[in-house]
Amino acid sequence: MTLATDRYTRALINSNQVEGTAVFNVQGERLGSIDCVMIDKQKGHVAYAVMAFGGFLGLGEKRHPVPWASMTYDTSKDGYVIPLSKEELKAAPSLDPDQYSQLGDPDYDAAVYTHYKAEPYWL
Amino acid sequence: MTLATDRYTRALINSNQVEGTAVFNVQGERLGSIDCVMIDKQKGHVAYAVMAFGGFLGLGEKRHPVPWASMTYDTSKDGYVIPLSKEELKAAPSLDPDQYSQLGDPDYDAAVYTHYKAEPYWL
Repeated sequence: MTLATDRYTRALINSNQVEGTAVFNVQGERLGSIDCVMIDKQKGHVAYAVMAFGGFLGLGEKRHPVPWASMTYDTSKDGYVIPLSKEELKAAPSLDPDQYSQLGDPDYDAAVYTHYKAEPYWL
Repeated sequence: MTLATDRYTRALINSNQVEGTAVFNVQGERLGSIDCVMIDKQKGHVAYAVMAFGGFLGLGEKRHPVPWASMTYDTSKDGYVIPLSKEELKAAPSLDPDQYSQLGDPDYDAAVYTHYKAEPYWL
């Protein structure tokens, strides 16, 4: 079996590198860092990057699930940029660290992708 | 903007959980464990799960890049199963831990996906 190949070298990133990467908003303010990515088991697609933010001395930390396509890597910042202002981010869906089970729920996913104006990968 | 939703709840897995998960062959022999997944930055798709195997006292460890779709999770083993025999796995493409830059090369990817008879996600 010979696969058709394109001559495009795919740029791949190691999940261990994604985890812990800083995240900024469009104003350049540091928002938090990536806790993990959530992978759709059946499709093998990244459904979300989950950003950890807020909290103090280990208390009150929250999570923002972000569609992968909504993040842009900025080499000058060595981090991802999310195209939301501070106010839009306050209104963005967020979770407690123990609420990841909400991710994958059809209504929850639709709400997140709508908020970020992202193309749903599942369609 | 209202997104069409299906009523299917997507099963998502946390990348932190994937990393470190054991990997078995069809004979049930433990081969190694997942070091990381490699994510296609532009498509947001998991190009590979990279399995660490072999080695002794930290020396000689190798990596097998495996297409995501070639792995099946087996709850009774608490690990992934790769559909290769021991011999087929010996012949499978492998890397040294510092050779991840080969992943994403069109010819290398075609060779790996051909070996595992996996559908290329990039087509």
